[in-house]
Amino acid sequence: MQKKITTIKDIGEKELLNRLKKFLRAGQIDDDIAEIKSSEKNLLINTDLLVEKIHFSEKISNPKDIGWKCITTNISDLICSGSKNIVSFSVGLVLPPNTHWKWVESLYEGMHEAIKEFGGEIIGGDCTSGEIKMISITAIGEMNQPRLHRGNAIPGDYIVSTGYHGLSRLGLALLTSEKLPSKVQINPELSNRAIEAHKRPYPAVKALKALIECKPQTTSWRAAGTDSSDGLIESIRGICESSNCQAVVSKTSILKDPNWPKDSNWNDWVLYGGEDYELILSLPKEWAEALLIKLKSAKIIGFIKQGKPKIFWDNLEEINIKKANLFQHF
Amino acid sequence: MQKKITTIKDIGEKELLNRLKKFLRAGQIDDDIAEIKSSEKNLLINTDLLVEKIHFSEKISNPKDIGWKCITTNISDLICSGSKNIVSFSVGLVLPPNTHWKWVESLYEGMHEAIKEFGGEIIGGDCTSGEIKMISITAIGEMNQPRLHRGNAIPGDYIVSTGYHGLSRLGLALLTSEKLPSKVQINPELSNRAIEAHKRPYPAVKALKALIECKPQTTSWRAAGTDSSDGLIESIRGICESSNCQAVVSKTSILKDPNWPKDSNWNDWVLYGGEDYELILSLPKEWAEALLIKLKSAKIIGFIKQGKPKIFWDNLEEINIKKANLFQHF
Repeated sequence: MQKKITTIKDIGEKELLNRLKKFLRAGQIDDDIAEIKSSEKNLLINTDLLVEKIHFSEKISNPKDIGWKCITTNISDLICSGSKNIVSFSVGLVLPPNTHWKWVESLYEGMHEAIKEFGGEIIGGDCTSGEIKMISITAIGEMNQPRLHRGNAIPGDYIVSTGYHGLSRLGLALLTSEKLPSKVQINPELSNRAIEAHKRPYPAVKALKALIECKPQTTSWRAAGTDSSDGLIESIRGICESSNCQAVVSKTSILKDPNWPKDSNWNDWVLYGGEDYELILSLPKEWAEALLIKLKSAKIIGFIKQGKPKIFWDNLEEINIKKANLFQHF
Repeated sequence: MQKKITTIKDIGEKELLNRLKKFLRAGQIDDDIAEIKSSEKNLLINTDLLVEKIHFSEKISNPKDIGWKCITTNISDLICSGSKNIVSFSVGLVLPPNTHWKWVESLYEGMHEAIKEFGGEIIGGDCTSGEIKMISITAIGEMNQPRLHRGNAIPGDYIVSTGYHGLSRLGLALLTSEKLPSKVQINPELSNRAIEAHKRPYPAVKALKALIECKPQTTSWRAAGTDSSDGLIESIRGICESSNCQAVVSKTSILKDPNWPKDSNWNDWVLYGGEDYELILSLPKEWAEALLIKLKSAKIIGFIKQGKPKIFWDNLEEINIKKANLFQHF
């Protein structure tokens, strides 16, 4: 006899909310509404939508990983705006009535794991039925110095990347058995790191803390930054566009995993792969140099100069930013 | 020749965001993230999800009405928790790529109209593609006294409704040419009010202000409350459940529009119709009486007594709360 699988329609909305109570801040289920304590600091707020088949797929990620990812990608947006204290999350879920209860539980377990790691708490949300799964997360963090903006770069700044790029893109390819850029043997350690990077992205909390701690007294808090969730070149393009300036990037300085294939066919994934969650910063020279000492994984990869928004390699060849538009949503 | 309709895929994500800029707080488009100024008051936060075909339908509402409704129903959740100062909204949109640009513009116009009426500002959000339209709104308001909870009722309280019920349900029926509870001639004024109530719900801001202003000095700020968005009886059931008490409701005291059909077949829509946005309050006697003087539309409709959560008519006949479960989402 086949074992009956319990769906959320079987257990009903009231019982569903009751079962999810353990993941929420106490006392938040009776009313639809949640409270945030008054704060001397300004708050930063970010909403991310994740739609099934577009942002996540059960073929390649289990619900626990999806839960982790929807919280951490949101945290990354707060981190790359300069918020190191994550306060709270409001979670909206659209679920088909035949969704398995275990799926929902695992999703929340994954969110909870991420929250244990990075802070904050789930304070409430909404849950409703729909034909496709959709997760809407609004995250709130405390604002502190530096308030990183894409629009804060100025000519003379150094561009700093806080880690490797391309791993998540490789992970996706490995998980979906996609054709690789060239026939090479992938090092097993690289393979593991790539899959982990794709399934369990890790926001650059340590990098932000290092950035705050190493600021030279001689510089102000002015710094530009974003995360590389839409790809390395796209992050730099965003900074150039918002700050109305140009970037010169050193080809040899781009950070790649030590086991990353040497073949140049593999460069595009490093430059345009996306779903990396490193910080891409534009900093005064002294601050950039101080960060390199404080944070071993950081590297200066270029500099900012005056001019209409464009990106060049250090041989002055212009970088094709059209390729950076992979993450356009329409 | 057929006129070409511009879709959001035609204009692209960047231009879409650019065109929506006029509806957002200045300076919020460059980064994905928004700021909320520090506040001496605690904040209340509420997320509502609206899914096409479930919460809204283009057959009966135009996008401007949908925009108005998704903001006002969210405001109603803040109002019925006691927040009279609406601060900000974060708007997440899932849209099929073939969505007409004019649809999106009208949606934002509707949201903007509601914001002009009730306060707050759109501070940011997210926009992505998906097979069905989905709107996720997170609203933030300042907390003040009284912090209304469903769980704050105590035996001896009077139950107060701040207005009529059933109008929105009738409006829906008229808009969809649904069979009415009995063959009666609907008064044209009632018909207009019903359609307006369904398409342009109006949160009980005035009722909350009156409640705050009329509190007798002799009572504390303790009060229970909710809005009647899930139906009148369901609101009372929620208060009983959360406060662990019983309600006795006076059949003759239920507020109906003066032109509401007299036929008793029409009672169910008043009691269980839903999508009304009145406040249902449980108040100390003196406060309830003061509110009736301050707010002409308010009426005492029953009282709270000890006992396992149940609702009775004043002839002690138990009210069937199963009917109140119409708004269960799974």
